[in-house]
Amino acid sequence: MTQFDLLLVGNGNVARRFVSLLEERRGVLGRRYAIRARVVGVKTRRSSAESTVDFIRAACARHAAAARERRLVVVETTTLDVAKGEPATSHVRAALAGRAHVITTNKGPTAFAYRSLRRAAERAGRKFLFEGAVMDGIPIFNLVRDALPAVTIIGFRGVVNSTTNYVLTAMERGETFDGALAAMQRSGIAEADASLDIEGWDAAAKTAVLANVLLGARVTPHSVDREGVNAAAAHRILAAQAVGRRVKLVASAEKAGGVVRGRVLLVDLPETDLLAGLDGQENALILHTDLLGEVAIVQRGSGLTPTAYGLVADLVSILRDVQRTRASRRSPGPARRDRNP
Amino acid sequence: MTQFDLLLVGNGNVARRFVSLLEERRGVLGRRYAIRARVVGVKTRRSSAESTVDFIRAACARHAAAARERRLVVVETTTLDVAKGEPATSHVRAALAGRAHVITTNKGPTAFAYRSLRRAAERAGRKFLFEGAVMDGIPIFNLVRDALPAVTIIGFRGVVNSTTNYVLTAMERGETFDGALAAMQRSGIAEADASLDIEGWDAAAKTAVLANVLLGARVTPHSVDREGVNAAAAHRILAAQAVGRRVKLVASAEKAGGVVRGRVLLVDLPETDLLAGLDGQENALILHTDLLGEVAIVQRGSGLTPTAYGLVADLVSILRDVQRTRASRRSPGPARRDRNP
Repeated sequence: MTQFDLLLVGNGNVARRFVSLLEERRGVLGRRYAIRARVVGVKTRRSSAESTVDFIRAACARHAAAARERRLVVVETTTLDVAKGEPATSHVRAALAGRAHVITTNKGPTAFAYRSLRRAAERAGRKFLFEGAVMDGIPIFNLVRDALPAVTIIGFRGVVNSTTNYVLTAMERGETFDGALAAMQRSGIAEADASLDIEGWDAAAKTAVLANVLLGARVTPHSVDREGVNAAAAHRILAAQAVGRRVKLVASAEKAGGVVRGRVLLVDLPETDLLAGLDGQENALILHTDLLGEVAIVQRGSGLTPTAYGLVADLVSILRDVQRTRASRRSPGPARRDRNP
Repeated sequence: MTQFDLLLVGNGNVARRFVSLLEERRGVLGRRYAIRARVVGVKTRRSSAESTVDFIRAACARHAAAARERRLVVVETTTLDVAKGEPATSHVRAALAGRAHVITTNKGPTAFAYRSLRRAAERAGRKFLFEGAVMDGIPIFNLVRDALPAVTIIGFRGVVNSTTNYVLTAMERGETFDGALAAMQRSGIAEADASLDIEGWDAAAKTAVLANVLLGARVTPHSVDREGVNAAAAHRILAAQAVGRRVKLVASAEKAGGVVRGRVLLVDLPETDLLAGLDGQENALILHTDLLGEVAIVQRGSGLTPTAYGLVADLVSILRDVQRTRASRRSPGPARRDRNP
C-alpha cells in the first residue's frame, strides 16, 4: 500500500471535489492500485499570512520523510493567470525543489514553463502532471503517454473551451451573444468575469499546453494567434448556416519545418466535420498521428467531477511511475540480464 | 534492455507489417522503452505438418529460458472463426501454458473465452492482450486500463465495422448495395467473402469482445442480437435521409441489473449524433462512464499499419507489466513500508 500525503494549494471547488472523490473511490483505489491518500496541509490565500511559496517550502521540509519516500504530493488548483502563469509556476517549482510530486488543473505552469518544469521534475526525480488542465479529466496526456507508445503526434485541432462553444450554439438558435453569455453565468458554468473564455485566452492557454507537451513546442498563450467570440460573430454564424456550415472556435497547432504555430480562430466548418457536430459544452480534440492517422477524443459531459478526476488519474500515474522507477533502480531482474545485441 | 523473443502464429499481412513496424521503430522502442524484439519462430498452416498447438508447445519448450524470464511472446494473427473462436483460443491456451505472453489481433479468443483466458494468464503470470482486435490499434483497452483508472464503464455504443459503414455511406449517395460492396472488394478493403462483415458477424464479435472486457460480461457473438446490411436496407436509408437522419450499423451493450445485453442493429440516427457523422470507413466508440459522462474515441484512418500497431502497443504494455510485477515482487521499497492505517 502506498500512502500519499497531499498538500492542497488552493482549496476551491475542484480541490474539495478531488478530496471527496478520493473518499468515494477509496475502495477501488485501495484494492486495485494499493493507493491511500490523506490531506496533510492546506493553503489558501486566506489560510495564513505567509506566501504560498514559503508555505510549500516549509510544508515540504515538515514532511521530508514522505517526500524522500516519494509519496508527498502538492495538489495545485489555483486559478489561471494568463499574463505570466504566476504564481502557479513558482508553486510548482517550490514543490519540486522540496521533492514533492505536483499534480495540477492549472494551465498556467504548462502553458508558460513546461520545458523548464519538466527538467526540474526530472532533476528532482518527481512527477509534474496536469491531466485536468485540458478537457477536464478526459485523458489526453495519459492517452498519448500510456496508450500511444511510439506514436508521434504531428499536430492537432479541437474545440477546447465550453463557454464559447455554448455561446456559439445558442447564437445559431437565434439568441444574442449577451443573452447566451448571461444564461451561462446564471447557471454557474461561466465565470462572472468570462473574458478569459470569451476573448479566447482559455483556449489559447490550452493550445499552448497541448503544443508544448504533445509537439515539443515552446509557445505561450501570447504567441498563439488568437480570436474570441463576440456579438459581431452573429453575421458569420448566419452566413455559415445559410450554406450548411457551422462556426466553431478551433484551437490548433502543427509542426512544420521544426516550428510549431498555435492558433485559436473562428472557423466555419462543413457539417460533416467532427468538430462541427459538437453542441453546447461538448469538447473534442483530433490528434494527427504518424501511425494511426487521425484519432479523436470527444468529451460529452463536463463539470466538476471530470475536472477533479484528472487529479485522481494523475495520482495513479505517480504510483505507476514510482513502481517503475523502483523496479529499474533496484532490481536487475531476469530480463535485464539479457546480453544480446 | 528487454529482448522479446517472438513466435509468430499466422504470418499474413498483419504479422508482416508488425515485424516491419518493429524494425522501423527500433530506435524509439530501444531509447524510450528499452525494448528489443526478434522473431524466433514462425508457424503458418503451410510451414509444417504438425498442428499449430503442437508447434506452440514445442516452441515454448525450446525457448523455456526466455519464457521463464517473461520475454517470450506468441503473436497470434490467424483469421477469425466466428463459429467457436477456434483454433485461435487453443493457440492462446497453449501459449499461456508454455509461459509465453500472448498478443493477438484475432477477436475470437476474447469474444468466446475471455474470462477463462484471463484466468489462465493470471495463473501463468503472463499477459494476454488484444488491442488490435477492435478499431485496429486505436487504443480502447489500453485507454480504459491505463488512462481511465478507477472509472467504471456502464455501457457503450459505436460503429465498429468499416465495410458496412462504407457500404451504407455509398448507398446514401445512390449506389446499389452490390455495387458498393464490389467496389470495396476490388480495392482490397473488403474480403472476397465479405459475409462476416455484411451479416454483422464481425461487429457482433467486436461487441462480445468489448462487452466481455469492459463490462465483465459473458457473451459470445452468438448471444449478441445481430442485424446486417443488405440490399433491402436501401428503403430505410432513403426514408431516413428524407427526414435528415442517417442509418448506421450500431454495436452496443449496457449493464442493467447485472445482465449485459449486446446488440448490432441498423439504427437511424439524428444527424447531430456523433455516430451519424462517420463517413466511409471511419469508426467510433462512445463509452458511457460513471465519472466522466460519455467519452468517445474516433478512428479516422484505417488500414494495415494501425492494426499492426495494436501489437506494438501490446508489446509495450507487456514490458510495463513485467517491470511493475518485478517491482512489487522484489523490492519492499520505502513507500511499501508505510504502516499507517
